[in-house]
Amino acid sequence: MAMKDHDLHVYNSLSREKEEFKPLTEGHVGMYVCGPTVYSDAHLGHAKSYVSFDVIVRYLRHLGFKLRYVQNITDVGHLTDDADEGEDKLEKRARLDQVHPMELAETYTRRYLRDMDALKVVRADIYPRATQHVPEQIAIVKELVEKGHAYEVNGNVYFSVPSWEAYGCLSGRKSDEQEAVHRVEVRSDKKDPRDFALWKVADGGHILRWDSPWGWGYPGWHVECSAMAVKYLGETFDIHGGGLENQFPHHECEIAQSNATGHPFARYWLHNNMINVDGVKMGKSLGNFVTIEDALRDHDPEAIRAFLLMTHFRSPANYTVEGLTAARNGLDRLQGCVAKLVEATGAAPEAEGPSDAVLAEAVARADRDFHAAMDDDFNTPIAVAALYDLVKPANLALAAGNASRAALQSALDLFTGLGEEVLGIVGDPTVDEGSMAADPFIELLLSVRHDLKQQKLFDVADHIRNGLTDAGIEVQDGKDGATWSRK
Amino acid sequence: MAMKDHDLHVYNSLSREKEEFKPLTEGHVGMYVCGPTVYSDAHLGHAKSYVSFDVIVRYLRHLGFKLRYVQNITDVGHLTDDADEGEDKLEKRARLDQVHPMELAETYTRRYLRDMDALKVVRADIYPRATQHVPEQIAIVKELVEKGHAYEVNGNVYFSVPSWEAYGCLSGRKSDEQEAVHRVEVRSDKKDPRDFALWKVADGGHILRWDSPWGWGYPGWHVECSAMAVKYLGETFDIHGGGLENQFPHHECEIAQSNATGHPFARYWLHNNMINVDGVKMGKSLGNFVTIEDALRDHDPEAIRAFLLMTHFRSPANYTVEGLTAARNGLDRLQGCVAKLVEATGAAPEAEGPSDAVLAEAVARADRDFHAAMDDDFNTPIAVAALYDLVKPANLALAAGNASRAALQSALDLFTGLGEEVLGIVGDPTVDEGSMAADPFIELLLSVRHDLKQQKLFDVADHIRNGLTDAGIEVQDGKDGATWSRK
Repeated sequence: MAMKDHDLHVYNSLSREKEEFKPLTEGHVGMYVCGPTVYSDAHLGHAKSYVSFDVIVRYLRHLGFKLRYVQNITDVGHLTDDADEGEDKLEKRARLDQVHPMELAETYTRRYLRDMDALKVVRADIYPRATQHVPEQIAIVKELVEKGHAYEVNGNVYFSVPSWEAYGCLSGRKSDEQEAVHRVEVRSDKKDPRDFALWKVADGGHILRWDSPWGWGYPGWHVECSAMAVKYLGETFDIHGGGLENQFPHHECEIAQSNATGHPFARYWLHNNMINVDGVKMGKSLGNFVTIEDALRDHDPEAIRAFLLMTHFRSPANYTVEGLTAARNGLDRLQGCVAKLVEATGAAPEAEGPSDAVLAEAVARADRDFHAAMDDDFNTPIAVAALYDLVKPANLALAAGNASRAALQSALDLFTGLGEEVLGIVGDPTVDEGSMAADPFIELLLSVRHDLKQQKLFDVADHIRNGLTDAGIEVQDGKDGATWSRK
Repeated sequence: MAMKDHDLHVYNSLSREKEEFKPLTEGHVGMYVCGPTVYSDAHLGHAKSYVSFDVIVRYLRHLGFKLRYVQNITDVGHLTDDADEGEDKLEKRARLDQVHPMELAETYTRRYLRDMDALKVVRADIYPRATQHVPEQIAIVKELVEKGHAYEVNGNVYFSVPSWEAYGCLSGRKSDEQEAVHRVEVRSDKKDPRDFALWKVADGGHILRWDSPWGWGYPGWHVECSAMAVKYLGETFDIHGGGLENQFPHHECEIAQSNATGHPFARYWLHNNMINVDGVKMGKSLGNFVTIEDALRDHDPEAIRAFLLMTHFRSPANYTVEGLTAARNGLDRLQGCVAKLVEATGAAPEAEGPSDAVLAEAVARADRDFHAAMDDDFNTPIAVAALYDLVKPANLALAAGNASRAALQSALDLFTGLGEEVLGIVGDPTVDEGSMAADPFIELLLSVRHDLKQQKLFDVADHIRNGLTDAGIEVQDGKDGATWSRK
């Protein structure tokens, strides 16, 4: 499918409108997605975020774009209240676990990537670590101080929100009133309660710290993403993705500090919505989460992906066991059809068959509907439905048994090309379900042989023994009957 | 096994003697091993290095030491001639592959860890990246310049070898005469041909570069390891490991630059020897390598580990297919014995048996010999032999069938505790070998049934049909005979 045939529109949080997607450089896309803070295990809320962007990445590549996907790993500077107060999440957890913060980061980065691999999330091209880009972050902070958009107080450097008129352009919020009041109470060195930290002084034994023009400290969470995105994608790049909960203040701050250095930052902002459990956001702090590891014990990755993709990425999904089961049941029909197509395609005739025309029309419609849905802000629920709509005509053609190999193959190609390569929900239909264990049949043979010997039917009894020997089974006759073992 | 019972001696390359191992802090060990430069796939030469240090790590932990294991990932600064000339290995390969050097690093770091996992190499606690520690490296270079041990010329900073009398303490070499002559020809800004680069000016479009007191550049390979080891293990730490080929100049330079900052560096230097193929070192540049991925296609990880451990880590191993096969055959005996022990232990009597005393003596001897070998500079060939020596008495006790459960269990514990947990060569003896496929036995049953029906022996024929039904097989009688399918 050539790019020019498509007319992709994405909802840009920045303009609050669906816009035609036109990358900066034709045929190329630079995409940055806020990655995890690696201090604990990822849960289904993270799965919704990263599976959503995984499908966006897969679809853009399917359209022919050469895409560089950058996703950061936050291993320093993310504080417990997501803003400028509280403890560094990694330092806090590392102290509890009595390990070095970098050991903690190693452990949870590894577990995060293991979970993503298990969910069939395609790896990013680069996973930059925040601690890996401290010089780049210091350079941005320095520039902002020089340009009058930031100031230093007691070793902390703050971005001056009043100095940047466009602050609020993304979220429409100038500040969180309540938080601002709260914050000004506990920390009084900000000139304005809306100001946010670019650099924090390392006090109280903060282990991860670096020398800077403002003394020993560590970078603020917001500036990390600005530095890493720009380093690998250029000052202005195409897509910035992340969770809706990070739109404010995290992404708002990213935009302010990046634009204030004099360069437009990301052009399209995509935000995924959360997972709710009984109407409340699934999250670490609420304790109502299901880890990806746990979810994968009960459900296969295709079912989890299908469940997540049955809600649009910008809408909240409601997590229930029933919802996941329903997704699994829907998939069973789809995967069953694909398995039958694989089997039938090999044996089907070359010559055109009576079912060909109807099936070809259904395939063309599914292809059209799938692309129309995905081109409309990656509308995966409708795209999934387009695939499901093909199951019935495909099953009818299979049952009729009079479609040509080419007709069946085109249905199969659509399922694997769009269902698996783009959505990742079909799985590998050629995978063996696992052979049945031979033991009960060997036991049955020995029991039949016993009956035959009792009836003096030694010919047939020997037939069994010889057959078992040929199949690699050694039969040992004893006074308590026959036993067997593999040779 | 308590630490105090052991009297571990290790050969220290620094003193050229076996020394008693006494860590800096009782009960704790800090260990650093030079990791891979991530620009291509790891081969068996790397496997020898990392499996050797894996067993050292496992053994020290087995002795009860709390060990922090740090292994770096070199993603910048390693030049093609391993010294100060040539191109940056990552930049060169990235240019050929038309990817960003950090994409290349991501790809090969992932593949390296995948290979190590497959070889059952226990992960390091921290894998610091060189690019993640540029500020720390700049700080060391700055300090060395201030202390008069380094100087800047045209944006490059060199360590002054004449300024450091102890240079050569590790390798006994003051310089590589031939290389020095060669080098002085091509680069004349060194004051002494033996001087080595701490910081390189970023010319010719070097993508990975950082601002520094000497302008834009990137760190020299040697200083990376000094910075990362000290950051996570402290200025003075216990063990530094690496390949013998890095003893000079890499480790010699590490020692010089680290000690010259005023602090003793690593206390014990452990060097593993290489793998030879037809008498020549297996290496990337010679093209005579077998990648770990390829080796694992033909051999299981236990066989590869056993093959590597049958040579002492400080001796060169000779790679041949026959050698690997011999390792596999030896393991078959060992693993066969362990599998039988697992089976017999469950059924063995509680009461003391006639074979107990002989078996207990053999177990005690194997335990003693194993630890004596490992305590003597991690002598794995002898440690492996100690385990093999237990196979015969264990098999004799099993064949006699009169050892108690406790006696068999102690043999089993030794094999799993030392053979698997320390050496990683036993594998999981409880793993199912894979059930046999049922199909040939079902076919045999149908063929017997066919015979019986022809002979009008309907009772036995129905016995077969009912047995198949109970086992979940549906039999369909047709004019061309019976067919079957799973229900």
